[in-house]
Parts: sequence; structure tokens; C-alpha cells
Amino acid sequence: MKNFARLFVCCIGWLSASPAADAPSLQGFSSDSATSERAWEAKFKAVPSADRLREYMQRLSARPHHVGSPYDKDNAEWILAKFKEWGLDAQIENFDVLFPTPRERAVEMIEPTRFVARLEEPPVAGDPTSNQKQEQLPTYNAYSVDGDVTAPLVYVNYGIPADYEKLDRLGISVKGAIVIARYGASWRGIKPKVAAEHGAVGCIIYSDPHEDGYFQGDVFPQGAWRPLYGAQRGSVMDMPLYPGDPLTPGVGATEGATRLAINEAKTITKIPVLPISYGDAQPLLAALRGVVAPGDWRGALPITYHTGPGPAKVHLKVASNWDTKRLYDVIARIPGKEESNLWIVRGNHHDAWVNGAEDPVSAAIAEMEEARGLAELVKQGWQPKRTIIYCVWDGEEEGLLGSTEWAEAHADELRQHAAVYINTDGNGRGFLQMSGSHSLEKFMNGLAKDIQDPEKDYPAWKRLRLERIANAPAEDRGKIRDRADLRLGALGSGSDYTVFLDHLGIASLDLGYGGEDGGGIYHSIYDDFYWYTHYADTDFRYGRALAQTVGLAVMRLADADLLPYDFADFTDTIQQYVDELEKLWKTKSDEIKESNREIEEGVYVATADPKKTMVPPKIEEVPPFLNFSPLRNALEKLQRSSEHYGKAVATLNLGQKPLDALNLKLAQAERGLTLPDGLPGRPWFRHQIYAPGMYTGYGVKTIPGVREAIEQKNWKQADEQIVRAGQVLEKEAAVIEEIAGEMER
Amino acid sequence: MKNFARLFVCCIGWLSASPAADAPSLQGFSSDSATSERAWEAKFKAVPSADRLREYMQRLSARPHHVGSPYDKDNAEWILAKFKEWGLDAQIENFDVLFPTPRERAVEMIEPTRFVARLEEPPVAGDPTSNQKQEQLPTYNAYSVDGDVTAPLVYVNYGIPADYEKLDRLGISVKGAIVIARYGASWRGIKPKVAAEHGAVGCIIYSDPHEDGYFQGDVFPQGAWRPLYGAQRGSVMDMPLYPGDPLTPGVGATEGATRLAINEAKTITKIPVLPISYGDAQPLLAALRGVVAPGDWRGALPITYHTGPGPAKVHLKVASNWDTKRLYDVIARIPGKEESNLWIVRGNHHDAWVNGAEDPVSAAIAEMEEARGLAELVKQGWQPKRTIIYCVWDGEEEGLLGSTEWAEAHADELRQHAAVYINTDGNGRGFLQMSGSHSLEKFMNGLAKDIQDPEKDYPAWKRLRLERIANAPAEDRGKIRDRADLRLGALGSGSDYTVFLDHLGIASLDLGYGGEDGGGIYHSIYDDFYWYTHYADTDFRYGRALAQTVGLAVMRLADADLLPYDFADFTDTIQQYVDELEKLWKTKSDEIKESNREIEEGVYVATADPKKTMVPPKIEEVPPFLNFSPLRNALEKLQRSSEHYGKAVATLNLGQKPLDALNLKLAQAERGLTLPDGLPGRPWFRHQIYAPGMYTGYGVKTIPGVREAIEQKNWKQADEQIVRAGQVLEKEAAVIEEIAGEMER
Repeated sequence: MKNFARLFVCCIGWLSASPAADAPSLQGFSSDSATSERAWEAKFKAVPSADRLREYMQRLSARPHHVGSPYDKDNAEWILAKFKEWGLDAQIENFDVLFPTPRERAVEMIEPTRFVARLEEPPVAGDPTSNQKQEQLPTYNAYSVDGDVTAPLVYVNYGIPADYEKLDRLGISVKGAIVIARYGASWRGIKPKVAAEHGAVGCIIYSDPHEDGYFQGDVFPQGAWRPLYGAQRGSVMDMPLYPGDPLTPGVGATEGATRLAINEAKTITKIPVLPISYGDAQPLLAALRGVVAPGDWRGALPITYHTGPGPAKVHLKVASNWDTKRLYDVIARIPGKEESNLWIVRGNHHDAWVNGAEDPVSAAIAEMEEARGLAELVKQGWQPKRTIIYCVWDGEEEGLLGSTEWAEAHADELRQHAAVYINTDGNGRGFLQMSGSHSLEKFMNGLAKDIQDPEKDYPAWKRLRLERIANAPAEDRGKIRDRADLRLGALGSGSDYTVFLDHLGIASLDLGYGGEDGGGIYHSIYDDFYWYTHYADTDFRYGRALAQTVGLAVMRLADADLLPYDFADFTDTIQQYVDELEKLWKTKSDEIKESNREIEEGVYVATADPKKTMVPPKIEEVPPFLNFSPLRNALEKLQRSSEHYGKAVATLNLGQKPLDALNLKLAQAERGLTLPDGLPGRPWFRHQIYAPGMYTGYGVKTIPGVREAIEQKNWKQADEQIVRAGQVLEKEAAVIEEIAGEMER
Repeated sequence: MKNFARLFVCCIGWLSASPAADAPSLQGFSSDSATSERAWEAKFKAVPSADRLREYMQRLSARPHHVGSPYDKDNAEWILAKFKEWGLDAQIENFDVLFPTPRERAVEMIEPTRFVARLEEPPVAGDPTSNQKQEQLPTYNAYSVDGDVTAPLVYVNYGIPADYEKLDRLGISVKGAIVIARYGASWRGIKPKVAAEHGAVGCIIYSDPHEDGYFQGDVFPQGAWRPLYGAQRGSVMDMPLYPGDPLTPGVGATEGATRLAINEAKTITKIPVLPISYGDAQPLLAALRGVVAPGDWRGALPITYHTGPGPAKVHLKVASNWDTKRLYDVIARIPGKEESNLWIVRGNHHDAWVNGAEDPVSAAIAEMEEARGLAELVKQGWQPKRTIIYCVWDGEEEGLLGSTEWAEAHADELRQHAAVYINTDGNGRGFLQMSGSHSLEKFMNGLAKDIQDPEKDYPAWKRLRLERIANAPAEDRGKIRDRADLRLGALGSGSDYTVFLDHLGIASLDLGYGGEDGGGIYHSIYDDFYWYTHYADTDFRYGRALAQTVGLAVMRLADADLLPYDFADFTDTIQQYVDELEKLWKTKSDEIKESNREIEEGVYVATADPKKTMVPPKIEEVPPFLNFSPLRNALEKLQRSSEHYGKAVATLNLGQKPLDALNLKLAQAERGLTLPDGLPGRPWFRHQIYAPGMYTGYGVKTIPGVREAIEQKNWKQADEQIVRAGQVLEKEAAVIEEIAGEMER
């Protein structure tokens, strides 16, 4: 039906030789408004300048600019001044948050030999900003609890739950030990969390050269990858519980906010954590004995990886100044003309761990060029139908502080007014990366067809489609070829969209380009202008493309007669998620049955090498069948209502009647996917379709209540969560149905 | 039908309370002869002694004993003396073969910096035989052509055909270059062969620590794995063309044999080759620039792997003494009583690259204990029905010289008399490894049930079955559980069974234990008594199990009333191979269609990074449909005849009539799977079901004429080879049918 509708619109366009015959129709725009929109878009696209992007980057990344540093404030004020210079109505909003910075850090091996880790990243000759030692934050993990522990060392691979299952099988416990985990496979904050759950007393996280060092490519400054003493800073706050200021969950960290005591804050780690370089890690790992680590646990250091425990014994100490620091969020507003009560919110953070040329400046500069472009249009007479809000966040690195506090402070307004939040956070050469709410999938597909890839004679959409075909497993290629739209990735966490989507239920997008260059400078002093202009989007052509892409997205969302949501792709994707859940249950069930059977057959006894320790698994209860019918029933209704919506949109004569009431309802539709009491054990996360995983941290879990219950073999909770998710989707179907009905009236 | 027959035999045994009720029936034995056989077997099993195995190993591996060395001859004479001491009729047979040993070896980098490779394995303190430098062969690859070349270096991963396809895509040519390949993924001789086919002028092969060095475990002497300067010697003779003396293909290298001139010998490499250690390889690889090697090309050295070419420029020199050396094959014979014209041949080599405790002594000593055990039985009055021939080969390492020349010299007799050849070549702790002709699959399954695993309270068969279940992909577990018999692996090459199976068509087995220990001393000076008694089957319990296993196999094959071939498993396996061939064609066809489609869609243009070289593939002809019906028709006949055979055997009243004529026909049955003109381009390889791959070297290709034609996209040849293989299988079906008919007469 969907395809038929599109064909029909096409034919009309062709036969009537309307303006749409030259410019293909724009989703949500009448033919007239599409013509006008395209004219403004053409003007907008010409604005972003590679030279300016380069200048902005050089300025913003000239000095370290983490939360609480003078240059962080300076950058915010400079951005504000630019916004004002361009004619935008802008100001800075402040919040005061808990932000620990290290007072003492130590990692030293005391047995069997003595070794003191440097915990320092050396400056690089030729790289002019790598020597700003006085202003650099040392290498540390923010929101590690203070601690001073001495214990045997155990290597735990990535330190995710599956790794501890493996250790159990090998008869190795981390109780009372300090674990050393490598970066990768999960967000870093998961590592100390899972280690503490298993009884470890400390956690060291190191960057194995296999992940982003010499194994991947030449190291900085000869190449883009992590050098011997490069280390990855980063927050270890338990963000899957709630992000933002640990002392003000759910409310803005304004002057008058009620604050928790530090020892009440649940998102601070339970054990001390420090990140180290592979230069510092090698002597520690080389001193371990015991079992040789399983094949896929071995990294690229020239040693035999053992698990321990010991004989390496390590002293780990972290003590921080637990200060309150001020955030500087820059907020600019372009008021809407007809539907000013509907907001399109756009954000990228400006703070960095150190100089942060790539993270976040490479995308923050695109956001600035967008703002300048829109300001230019305003000067030329353009005014958006809806209100546009440009936000440049502070404190993202520490725990999405600036965006979370702002959105919590403005929660009521946002729930009422916000239609879409669009995020970026870093940019590079390559393919369009697009993730977000599936109701915006069709919109993003249309947009990506209108953006030219800077390196190829192809629209970004076509290049992305062909890249997906090239990299798909053989069995999935047909699906990509047959589907009209490219799928949007689902959003987990790790950037500033989190509060908008997961807490407030605002349809969100996260955009960027990448995939052609790599590097190992993430959260190090080497993520700077010198590195970026040697190894990334060196001529800022993709910076320009990003400004064009996101700017157009903002304009279209702000100007469309009808907000361009669509629910056919959404329904198709939910269907896929439900299929996955049923398969996940089946897989768990099959695995448990198989394991039980192998125990009974004697497989573990027979295959165990008597010279090695091998603890067989235990007989497990076979999972009960789950009742998926609430989800299946809801899907039926979603299918009917999304088809109805598609038909209603196809026959709607845009530009004939005011749609403000309808648009307000559409903007609220994503809110229907949230529940006020949130997910099990984490009420802050209200969205019932998307959430970061409790044990992945950044990685998304879709229909998370159900999925995580199954993953954790909590069958009762799984059944309960299916009912809740089913209700949410049924309600959503009813909302869509109602809107479709109103359209036809 | 097969299962029914077995059930029937079982029930008879149960009801009649015959001796078979206590001891389950033995395949091919009447109830009476089974009782007698089991009594002799019990006596035999008690003979092999761990202490003697240890003594033999210490003696045989006390000095380097490669072909042409004094200790090689000395060992042969010592084994001969032992055989004679035990009362066996034994002698030494000599052959004179071409065997090059190095006069000059050099690997040096001359640009961009100078580095001279050591090409030396240092002695290890505490290891008493590692310092016998005067007698050790240096590290080299035997049958490398002499050469002296200087050229830019290119890293080619494993140097197999797929790696060169990847290089083509990266726009890198090895024409005029010296390639450096890592050991692994193919037999070593493939590497210089493929390099030369692509225009390289020299080849260096190194042992990456990823394969058998520190990545796998602690290195010798702290652990079992390859140390920094350990290197892998080995032959690079083009054995997939023909093994044995390069100067006497197809005939025994006896005194009067006509010999080719050295420059006429096609199995000597086209370009010079040398093996090096990772200590020697690292400076060469670290000096390469150009493209960063693809992810799965990177080993475990602490460098960024680049492909080159250059700037590293290398000088490689090999010059050998092209001498004739004498082989000493030790041959002992126990004449058969009733069917002395049928031979059971058993072999293991005694020569080594250096001290060779693991390869081959760990299994040669088991063979000796078998011989002693059988000699003991003879003294006690046992005489086998058939003739048993024990062979201890010389010159295996250099190119299966001793076995090939002996079997070529005795080809006519062997074709007439040989029923089965049983090979071993190295042994360790763990699971029974069994490969061979599928007509012996049922026999080996029965045997493995009668052998106790030395570490577990399980028969070897049960332990192996459970190990296979544990390691099978989920979708294959059911098949293992449902099948009465464990599958025998198919034989490729790499040990002395090759001439018997592939050239002469004698049903063969290759046996051993392993899988629990690993190591990196293969073909180095560290493969010695010290290493073996620290890191392998240190108490020789598996050495004893091997002697028991193979000794029982020899006894049963020599004593059975009816030779215990069976064709049901054989047919089932051929069916599987034919399915694989059809799938292989389909996969090739799908891949070519997909690649063509992607070229037309613009995938390669769209996805190529303009900053990197990427040469897209070319449009290829879509494969024609192949006519598999000759194979399918033959399979039908095989199914009928093997069922018929099963029924005939089940109703055959063993011990009632002489079966010598039938047994002679059965022994010849495997010969029916050969064709006198052999495989395409390599007439020496006559077997139409098993062959080592032209581009794998050791790895088997089943139904090789068809399989390799499809792999090489030679569709005309594939169709022709299907017809040939179909005819061979039809003829085999007719032979089986005829024997079954005769049984029923």
C-alpha cells in the first residue's frame, strides 16, 4: 500500500508537470512549499565553508577545554559571541555539577618485581598542542570512587559478563583481586561495575594495541593510531542507571536544586579505577602466570597473555578533588513563525577531555556553520514555521552533563514543545552514519538522497546503500536491495541525545560521517588539530557535508507543512525486534537444553584435560515458554494504523488547512513510547523501545525491558515486560490511528 | 537395513548365550575366532611398556638423525637389531636419492637499513641435545632451487592463492619481488610455488608468533612454544605433483633405476626459498611500508604489518650440495598362515629433521612396541592368518622418500597383495585421531570402542565422540549424535600413507592421539627428549595407548575370517562429498553472479576510499550448469550394492567355508577407485576419491578431479571429471555387488 501511494503521488507529479516534476516532492511539504523550501535550501547549502571549519577547529582545540577549565568557559563565550555576531538570539545557561579531578593516582607492581606505571602521555615533537601539560587533565576515569588497594592482579579480557563466565569455567575468581581489563567490547563504565559485582577491589583499564594501537596501523605521529604511552580518559559513571550530575538525578542541577550527598550517588563506581597505556600495561600483564588466556582474549602485545591471579601484585590508588564545577551550555533560538510552540532542537557538545579536535570539535564546527547558514537565511527573509533551538553543550564527556541538566531543567517545556532532537558528536571521511527514532527513517532516507557525497559522484544515500550491500552477509543483501529505505540504527547511549530520547521521549537523530579513516587518539592529548588535519577529514569536505546534511534536516523539520514522521518503517522495525526477542528466547532455551544434555552425556568430564582446571557448568532450569502474544497483537494493530496513516497522508491536501493541532499530536507521538516508571531498576530510562544496555553501556537494547529480562534469564520479569511493551505499542497504534482519522476529517 | 542386521546379530548372541554374549562380536570374525582373537589381544595389550617407550625415545632422539647423517643409519641398524633380537624376520632395504643440503644461506636487508638474519637456532641451557651444532642440519627448506636474488620485499600473508587475489585488489604485484610469507594455512611447499606463479623471484617463510610462538603460550624452555630464534625446517618439494625422489618419479630409486637430470626434476622449486625465525623476520617486516596489511593478515609481532613492496630491499641466497644420499628402510615380516598372499602393512618413519623426539620418534617407538608385542605372541604360538609387514621408513621429512621408493619398487607385489596400510607419525596426549579409507570406518569405530583412554574412565571411542559433540557447530551436533559411527577423516598428504593410498590404491589408515598439548618446536632443534618429556606425553601413557590401538588394528586385520571392510559408511560419505561438490558449484556461481551484480551497481566505485588504491574485480563469465547425474547415478548403484553387501555379510556363516578368494577381491576393492592415468596434470596421483590439494599440499581434496576443476573454474574439465568419477564409482558398485553375490552363493 505504501509503495502504491508513492507511485500515485509520482504519477500525479509527472502528468500535471507541476513544480514537483522538476524537483521530486518533499515529504510533508505541499508542492508550493516544497519549491520555496528547495530554493532556501540551495542558499543554505552554499554557506558552509571548509576554511571557516578549519579556523573554528584551530580556535576551539587550541587549548585543553574540559569542564571547569578556563578554556572551556572561553570557548563557550567565543561560540556565544559568534552566534550573536551572526544575529542569533543566544545565551549561556549554567549548571553546577559534581566533577571529580584527580589529586593522587598510582599504579605500581610490588611483586614479583617492582614497576611503577608512568600514567603520563608524552608530548610529541611537531605537534604544537601536545605539550600543554599544565592545562591537561591527567589520564584518569572520572567518577571512580577514591580508593587505595593492594592485591593480586587478574586479567579479565574486556571485563564483560561473558568473560567472568569463562573465568568461572577456568576456576578463577577475582574476589579480593585487582582486575586488568582491556578497552573494547563494552562502554568502559561497565568494566568496573561488573568487576565490583564479582568481588574485585580495583580495576585497571588499558588500551591494548590490538584495539587501537600498532596492530591497527602506524602510531602517532607517524600514523593515526595510539602510541605506546597514549591512554584513554573517560567517565565510568554508571550512566545506564542515569546520566548527568550524580547529585541531581531527574532534575536540573540549578542553583536551588536539592542535591544528594556524594555517598548517596549511585552512579559513582564501587571500586577505584584507572586507565593506563599499553606501555604501562605490558609489564603488568607479562608478570601474570596461571592459565594462558583463551585465544580470543589475547591482544597484540608481544607476550603470552595469562589470566593470573598473580604472582603480579599491584598497588592501585585514586584520590580525587570532589569539586563542584560550572557548566556553560550555549543556547540559541530562531523563533518559529506559525508553529512556534513546536521546537526542533539541535545539539553537539563543545567540551573535550583534552584538546578534542575530533571529539567533539569536528562536529561542533559543523553545527556552528549550520547556525551561521540559518542566520544568513534569516537575514535574507527566511523564517522557519517552527522554532529552532541550537545547543552547544558543556560536560558531555563527564556524563552527558550539559544536555541532561538542561533537558531536566526544561523537561516540562520540552515534553510539550519538542518535536525532534538532532545530535552530532564527531565527524570524519566516509559514509553517512544515521541512527535514530524509526518514525524518522523515511525522512532521513529522503534527506540523504539530496546530499552529495564530497568524494564521489553519488548522493550520500546511494553511497551508503552500496556500502551496506558490500558489507552485508550474503543472506542479508537481498533485504537491503529490496527495501525502499535504508534502516536507521537504533540509539543506545554515549552522546547527548540520551536525555531527549530515553528520558523525555523526544524523537531523536544522531548523524555523522565516517568509516574511511581510523585512529587511536580517542580521549588522549593527541586528539588535536595537528592529528585531525593529518589523519582525518583533512580538507574539511565532510565537515561541510555534515553542516549541509544536518542543516537541511533542521530546515525541513522546521518548515514542513506536516511533520514528516512515518510509521510504516517504524512498524516494520518493531516487527523485526519482536522476531529477535522470540529468537533470543529460543536461543537461550536451546543453549540451556544443550548444556544440560552435555552435562548428562559426560561431555565435560570426557573432554577435560586432567592437567588443566576446568569447572563444568551446572544443570540449569529450562526456560518456560513466554507469552509473546501481547506484542504480536500490538503489532497487528500497529500495522493497520500505520497503513491507515500512510493512506491518510497520501490523500491529504497539504497547504489547504492549518495542521498545527495535528503536528502537535504528531510531535507527541514518540512520548507515547515512554512509561513514567521507566525500565526495571532504572526509572530514569522511560523509553520502552530504546535504551543503552545495563551491561553494554553504549550499545542499544531494543524493547529493553523484555530483552534484558531474557538475557538475564529472569523469565517472570520477561513475561511482565512483554505485557507492558505490548500495552505501550497498542497505545501508540491508537494514537496513530486517531491522527490518521483526524487527517481524513 | 544395516541397523536391523546389527540388531539381529546382537539378539542371537543374547539368546544363545554364546561366547559373543560376554565379548561383543568382532566384525569379520566368527564367534569362535573372535573368542580366540580376544584372548590373544588381551595378551598383546599387556606388552607395551611406558618405560621401554621412554628408553627408545631417548636412544633414537639422542643425536640429529636426518637422511644421510651417521645417526640416521645408526638408528636404522639399532631398530633392525631390536627387531631381530625379538625374533622378527627383518632387514634393511636401501635406496639412493637426491637430497640437497645447504652450502650457503643468506637473508639480509640492504635497504632502508642493513640487517643480517642469523639463521641460527641457539642452544638452550638445561636442554642437553640442543647444542649438537656439528650434527644439526641448518635451518633451510629442502629442494629449494639454488638462487641469489636481491629485490624489494612484499608481505603476502600465508602466500596462498586467496592472498594473491587480495593483493590484486590492493593493486600490489609481487613481480620481481621477494615475498615473505608466514607459516600456516597451507603446506609450506605451496608458498614458493604460488609465489613463483605470480612472478616473485624469491620466497622467505617465517614462523609468526601468532601461529606457534608466544601468542599461543610460553616459549621454550619456559613453555612448549617456539622461541624467538626457532625456525621451521621442511621440504618444499612440489609433492602434490609427485612425492619421493625427484629423479625417479613412479619407480623405486634402486641402484639400476633410470634417473632424471636434476634440471629435469619438476618437483624442485622454481625460486629460492629459506625459512626464518620471528626474531629474524621482525626487522624485515617492520621495514615494510605501503598498505597496512588486511586485518586477518596481521600476526602477533609488535609492529604494524604492511604489505610493501619495499622500501625494504632484501638479498636472499641459497646454494646447496645436490648430493645423492642412501636411505635405510627397516622392513620386518611376520608371515601369514592361511592367507599369506594378503598383506597388512604398517609404517612410521624414523628419520627426523634434527633430533625429532615428537616427529617422528613419539610414534615410531609405539610401532616398535607393537612389533615387540606381536613377536611375543608369535613366541607363544600365535600366527596371523595374513602376512604382516612392519616398516620403519627413512627420508619421510624430505619428501616421503623411504616409503615412496619402497612402494614404487614393490608396486606390483603391493597391488597384488596389500590389503591395508596403517600409518602413524607422531603422538601426544588427548583424543584418538583417526583418518583413512571410508571402507574401514566401521572397523575403526569397533576398534576404538575396545581401547581404554589412559586418562579417563572411558573407551577412546566414547571420549572422541563426546569431544566431537563438544566442538561441533550447533547444527552438526545432532548428526554426530544420530550416527552410529564416528566419521573417519579423509586423507590428504604429509605422511607415508601417500604412495599406498594415492598411487597404489591400498586402503589406508592414519592414527594417533593428540589435542591436549601444543607446542612450537616442529622441525626445530628443540623437538627433543627434553621438550617431549616436559611438555607432551611425559609419562608415555598415550604412547602405550597408541601401540595398543595400532597393534590391535593390525591383529584384527590380519586375523579376521572376512576382511572387515564395509561400504555403507563409505557410500554415506561419498554422498556427502557429492553434495559438497554441488554446493561448491552453486557457491561459485552465486559468488560470480553477486560480484558481477555489484560491479554493475557501482558498489566498488562507491565504496572505494579515494585515498587508497582499490582495484575492482572484473566481470566474470557465469558458470554453466554442470551435469552431476553421472555421480548421482553411480551413488544410486553404490547404495544398492552396499546394502546388498551388508545383508550378505550379516547372513554369512563365518568359519564354514574358505574365504580367501573373497578376501583377495575385497583387498583389491580400493584399487578400483584408481585410474591408471591419474588426476589432471598429475598422473602419479591415481586415486579418484582422495588426493592432497594442488594448492593446499597436505589438505585433502575429495573427488579431487571434480573439486579442483570447480575451484579453478575450469567448467569443461569439471564436467569431464564428473564422468570419470562417476564411472569409477559405478565400477566400484559393481565390484561390491559381485562380492556380495559371491558371498550368498
